[in-house]
Amino acid sequence: VLNPADEYVADFVSGISRLKVVRAHAVMQSIESFEQAHGPLPEGLQQFDHDAHLGELINSAISSDRPLLVADNEGREVGVVTREDLLRTVIEGAETS
Amino acid sequence: VLNPADEYVADFVSGISRLKVVRAHAVMQSIESFEQAHGPLPEGLQQFDHDAHLGELINSAISSDRPLLVADNEGREVGVVTREDLLRTVIEGAETS
Repeated sequence: VLNPADEYVADFVSGISRLKVVRAHAVMQSIESFEQAHGPLPEGLQQFDHDAHLGELINSAISSDRPLLVADNEGREVGVVTREDLLRTVIEGAETS
Repeated sequence: VLNPADEYVADFVSGISRLKVVRAHAVMQSIESFEQAHGPLPEGLQQFDHDAHLGELINSAISSDRPLLVADNEGREVGVVTREDLLRTVIEGAETS
């Protein structure tokens, strides 16, 4: 593995691509959607950039079952990621790729 | 894709291998370990064969956050799979492959 293109191919071959390629903004649900299903968003949630990797989000979701908050470049809260969203992303990636 | 070996390679290339290759017995924790952390195992859990695919377990965990029960060939309950176990498996697979 000598350059980014090779690394990308190697990742696909080893089956880990989605953890590095998929970003928070593609996994999150809207805050409105979360609150309709679960009630008001809890305070003090761990916050991630909208470009955070799927792998980072999963690592955080392993250590806590609280939802993760996603913020845009200006720090505005733009979405929420739950364990359910993460599991669905793993399956959906497999079914569509 | 004409034979199982080709299909296996194709799965790896498309990054979905672990969903079909990893089985329940490799993901589950012992019932003792679950009960130490969460208290007595709830009644009426959905039950899976110890050879069930990771993908099946994840699909079930998307629709309910209850733990999944794993049984051996004789129907004995041998383990439990939680959402946390499933998320950890996805990450561990990436880190060790």
